[in-house]
Amino acid sequence: MNQPEQSSILYGRKITVECPATVANLVCGFDILGMALKDPQDLIEMSVSDQPGIRISHADGYDLPTDPAQNVAGAALLDLMQGVEESVGFDLTITKLIKPGSGLGSSAASSAGAVVAANQLLGNRFSQKDLVRFAMAGEKVASGVKHADNIAPCIMGGITLIRSIFPLDIIQLSAPPMYVTVVHPQIEVRTSDARQILRKEVLLKDAIRQWGNIAGLVAGFLQKDYDLIGRSLEDVIIEPVRSILIPGFDEVKKASREAGALGGGISGSGPSIFMLSREAATAQNISVIMKDVYDSLGIDSKIYVTTLNNEGATIRNLT
Amino acid sequence: MNQPEQSSILYGRKITVECPATVANLVCGFDILGMALKDPQDLIEMSVSDQPGIRISHADGYDLPTDPAQNVAGAALLDLMQGVEESVGFDLTITKLIKPGSGLGSSAASSAGAVVAANQLLGNRFSQKDLVRFAMAGEKVASGVKHADNIAPCIMGGITLIRSIFPLDIIQLSAPPMYVTVVHPQIEVRTSDARQILRKEVLLKDAIRQWGNIAGLVAGFLQKDYDLIGRSLEDVIIEPVRSILIPGFDEVKKASREAGALGGGISGSGPSIFMLSREAATAQNISVIMKDVYDSLGIDSKIYVTTLNNEGATIRNLT
Repeated sequence: MNQPEQSSILYGRKITVECPATVANLVCGFDILGMALKDPQDLIEMSVSDQPGIRISHADGYDLPTDPAQNVAGAALLDLMQGVEESVGFDLTITKLIKPGSGLGSSAASSAGAVVAANQLLGNRFSQKDLVRFAMAGEKVASGVKHADNIAPCIMGGITLIRSIFPLDIIQLSAPPMYVTVVHPQIEVRTSDARQILRKEVLLKDAIRQWGNIAGLVAGFLQKDYDLIGRSLEDVIIEPVRSILIPGFDEVKKASREAGALGGGISGSGPSIFMLSREAATAQNISVIMKDVYDSLGIDSKIYVTTLNNEGATIRNLT
Repeated sequence: MNQPEQSSILYGRKITVECPATVANLVCGFDILGMALKDPQDLIEMSVSDQPGIRISHADGYDLPTDPAQNVAGAALLDLMQGVEESVGFDLTITKLIKPGSGLGSSAASSAGAVVAANQLLGNRFSQKDLVRFAMAGEKVASGVKHADNIAPCIMGGITLIRSIFPLDIIQLSAPPMYVTVVHPQIEVRTSDARQILRKEVLLKDAIRQWGNIAGLVAGFLQKDYDLIGRSLEDVIIEPVRSILIPGFDEVKKASREAGALGGGISGSGPSIFMLSREAATAQNISVIMKDVYDSLGIDSKIYVTTLNNEGATIRNLT
């Protein structure tokens, strides 16, 4: 971390940051892979002052906590402020468009967006890796675990590999252009429940199959080999257990593959399901398929047809 | 498979093929990764005739079987001949320089070399993937398992990923130039014993750490990032169990890392140990370290300082 002069702090300015939704796990990459989406995105407006403290307000209807220690953005900022010598405070307004509990990295968007905004207002003194670390304190509030598989792509954009959490080792993986279709069935799956139903031990032969797929997926991204990406999007460990919590999962997956999706699966711990496609038309067709499945099950659903987002959290404006 | 004319068979010609040693697993890639070495290499001399049958002789002192069904090269050729309509036979002489039981893919070199040689003599009618499949029949004779993590790099060269065995899916991974130091302590570790001591179940948290490393290693190769390769060469599942069978393993690994090795570990199921280095001088220094460790333990050892082999099994001459 640099120690720039105090004058680099942008007192009296107001920044608006767009914080993208993210898909963690990417089927076979449980706890290590994540991908940023163009849509949906949260917005965070923030200003910095010499009045210590973090004051949070919400411009949405989700009734999230405003106490900084209980709020994911607040917890991330509290962690960041431990690295700030000057006596400063932040005022922020969060507009959530990524529904909490959707499995699309809603908490990560708030934590990541808050530290990206704060870093700009503080004269850009922290590295992206520092920001990931601060934002992980927000994830701890949200799910009890300091995971980075939503945070890293939200801050850095594109597809990220978390090779290791302790020590933190993040690798950005370039990938070919891809369309992403997401359905968020309006049911609740708690991250903590989704974790609890996982077995603590797995068969070695399943683990070997999984790491073959992970290796294939990483090679597919870097070699821009769509077929290999498709063949590697297989999860023999987590999905068979977690998909039980998501009605319609098998139908969505089967029909999407038949319609030409490269593949896909549960987004994070669900209930959202994502599918990757090479062509925009395929992604559109899949959105209709997804809607039909949930309509026929009598479950409301929200659909997004979007693309991979290579920028990550970005400054919409700074006034 | 093509069905070319019978006239494409090179009756009366004699081919000599060099069949390289290979390192399977590459630390964290158990059962999915393999790498070809420049040295050591076996030699196979072969001719084809219209006299059916496979006649094997050995020009080395290893007293390996000559019955085709019991010999790894013979078993591979028997499998290949099921795809040949013409009535042909092969005469071959095998000179093994890769010691059986070294963990350096000795059986794979014979199986792979035999089918590469035969394919040339038959007018190149089979694909590399066909050849891998035939040669796997040889591995079945050697170890009871049709694995491809030595066969694939031996035939294709470089570093190969076996994403899946059924169906067979082989991906070639480009990698930056690397030096390889190998020590073969003259002790016996049976592949079957090395497999039996592995637990059938592994902790999910260990599997996650392993697939983070595999993803990192694949990304490191493809992005030509030596540091990332080094950080990813960690095995929390297989090595802690198997290294117990190899005296001196921990010392060799620790001292090699200290001398600047990127990393390394058990070659295949052992007892050979390999270390990757970026510089030739480092690889040389490590060879001295390895020799010293085994000299001090009173165990004979054979050392190779070599490089990654991007060609795989190659034709030395065709007369």
